[in-house]
Amino acid sequence: MQNINLNDRIPAKGFAVFSKTDTFKPFAFSRHPVGANDILIEILYAGICHSDIHSARSEWKEGIYPMVPGHEIAGRVVAVGAKVTKFKVGDYAGVGCMVNSCGECEACKKSQEQFCQKKQTIFTYDCLDCFHDNEPTYGGYSNNIVVSEKFAINVPKDAPLDKVAPLLCAGITTYAPLKFSNVKAGDKVAVAGFGGLGSMAVKYAIKMGAEVYVFARNELKKQDALDMGVSGFYTSTRGVKERFDLIISTIPTAYDVHSYLNLLKFGGEMAIVGLPPRECSPKIDTMSLVFDAGKKVYGSLIGGIAQTQEMLDFSLKHKIYPEIEVISVEQINEAYEKLTNGKARFRYVIDMKTLQ
Amino acid sequence: MQNINLNDRIPAKGFAVFSKTDTFKPFAFSRHPVGANDILIEILYAGICHSDIHSARSEWKEGIYPMVPGHEIAGRVVAVGAKVTKFKVGDYAGVGCMVNSCGECEACKKSQEQFCQKKQTIFTYDCLDCFHDNEPTYGGYSNNIVVSEKFAINVPKDAPLDKVAPLLCAGITTYAPLKFSNVKAGDKVAVAGFGGLGSMAVKYAIKMGAEVYVFARNELKKQDALDMGVSGFYTSTRGVKERFDLIISTIPTAYDVHSYLNLLKFGGEMAIVGLPPRECSPKIDTMSLVFDAGKKVYGSLIGGIAQTQEMLDFSLKHKIYPEIEVISVEQINEAYEKLTNGKARFRYVIDMKTLQ
Repeated sequence: MQNINLNDRIPAKGFAVFSKTDTFKPFAFSRHPVGANDILIEILYAGICHSDIHSARSEWKEGIYPMVPGHEIAGRVVAVGAKVTKFKVGDYAGVGCMVNSCGECEACKKSQEQFCQKKQTIFTYDCLDCFHDNEPTYGGYSNNIVVSEKFAINVPKDAPLDKVAPLLCAGITTYAPLKFSNVKAGDKVAVAGFGGLGSMAVKYAIKMGAEVYVFARNELKKQDALDMGVSGFYTSTRGVKERFDLIISTIPTAYDVHSYLNLLKFGGEMAIVGLPPRECSPKIDTMSLVFDAGKKVYGSLIGGIAQTQEMLDFSLKHKIYPEIEVISVEQINEAYEKLTNGKARFRYVIDMKTLQ
Repeated sequence: MQNINLNDRIPAKGFAVFSKTDTFKPFAFSRHPVGANDILIEILYAGICHSDIHSARSEWKEGIYPMVPGHEIAGRVVAVGAKVTKFKVGDYAGVGCMVNSCGECEACKKSQEQFCQKKQTIFTYDCLDCFHDNEPTYGGYSNNIVVSEKFAINVPKDAPLDKVAPLLCAGITTYAPLKFSNVKAGDKVAVAGFGGLGSMAVKYAIKMGAEVYVFARNELKKQDALDMGVSGFYTSTRGVKERFDLIISTIPTAYDVHSYLNLLKFGGEMAIVGLPPRECSPKIDTMSLVFDAGKKVYGSLIGGIAQTQEMLDFSLKHKIYPEIEVISVEQINEAYEKLTNGKARFRYVIDMKTLQ
């Protein structure tokens, strides 16, 4: 990028939807100036997450339009603010689901910025940025992003950037509950839902030494799972004899939570990371919890910045990457169709060089 | 008791309801013979638990009538089978919510008999006893009970039997989650619902060194709570600034679980032990769990026999007893009324010597 004045707004272009029923179209906009602690990243790859679809269609809350989704971002640092120390121009950097938070509360100090107690977690898109005059945030389906260095992840120069991008959401979302539940060698872990999140959960759990089982809606990807080293593959919870230490549900549609809770050991835990649309969000009955007692259920929401860096380092060290299919910006609408219909076998990653 | 032939059925009398809308009336029945591993207990005291009311009125499931409730039983051993080793005639003994189980499955071997994997947990009343020709079980509102010695709790001779009785359900039900969540000195523990269960939870948690807070529906028992040493007393979750390591809900009516989950620390846990009627059993929304992430919720159902003995020993050592009001069998119906209307301040314990 040439002749950037860091004190001016930064021109940007991307792909956006202009309403919840829209398809993606080119969109020109600008980003806030590069502050003293900010970096400007030229985006090279942006993953498509199922959350992007829910957000673009206002399935969780009413969206802010035009909306440029994308919170799985990998690229190259092209400018740094005066006080930046973590990055220099030319470095690789990643951005996940958050771009800022208060930094002062107990949660932020523990690097659990997604739970900022001042409610100042700024999500990468579809959010009003209280640190920048409440401008809407725009995500990674674009050619650049300006972000506080604290919220950018260091990516080594030899990393496969296209595969790194999805780690910033799918990776941390599945790595975090495995850590939260202290998964250790020999534990029996089940992963429910075998899409982008599910396959990452399987890979991490296997690397952590667990015996891993998959629950999927059909057998289409059974061989993929077996190739990853899973010990069992089920298309229904009925009649399953195994009892698990941990079940991670990545299911993005309606399902019966209790049919999974039944399969936990006494003292076992179920982590919910998948988010079905609000109108079919599964409910847990407390009476059933009492009669099926001693099984803990919790939700897990992405992960903090420090843990995101830890996850990335772990992934690179052990070469744990998502299965991806690189597409052009022109293929975003088609990718959404396939993801909605369950026909996507891999994580779609947009090659942002295809944005003219 | 005179001239007992252990090989005959044991004559018994008690108070029963004959339908879910009935009031209690005298009822004569018999119990199975005293087997080689069984003991016969002359019941001296029987506590009235809120579960008794739900069961008598078929609020959880269709009851078995005539029903003699009562699973908080304390008395004197008056006969022992040939192979009994834990008790001799004249000892004190207690019986809680269970009288038998398979004894062979993994759960039973770990003394989690309430989760018998063969589904052979025999509850003290309102249950068909598969080990005795599927006869219905009859509980503690009666003059005696025959029980496998493995399911009877040793009670020392100097224990206050009237106060011991309620420990066998209210005690273990609240002691178990405090142990399951590893409560330790300095933890912040909230107890929601301040009836028979809630007040026991408060006493145990304080003895374990926790800083304890109470949520009640009104301020009627605020002074009782302060006298026990609680650090705060609330009548609503709204505006509460404290964040808790553990919340134990003993609430027996409809309530909003999420308003309590909001008050947990990251990594905190909520244990549900209270059981509202089925039609108003509170639901937990999984989407809310994800956005309010990192908080574990589980149900807790009484406790195993080994832990029940541990709880009783702990209670006696630290003189932790329920507040009780001893009543006669003729007052059972009135006690049910008061419990239903939230007008009971203490645990009612029936003096079984009043049964003629």
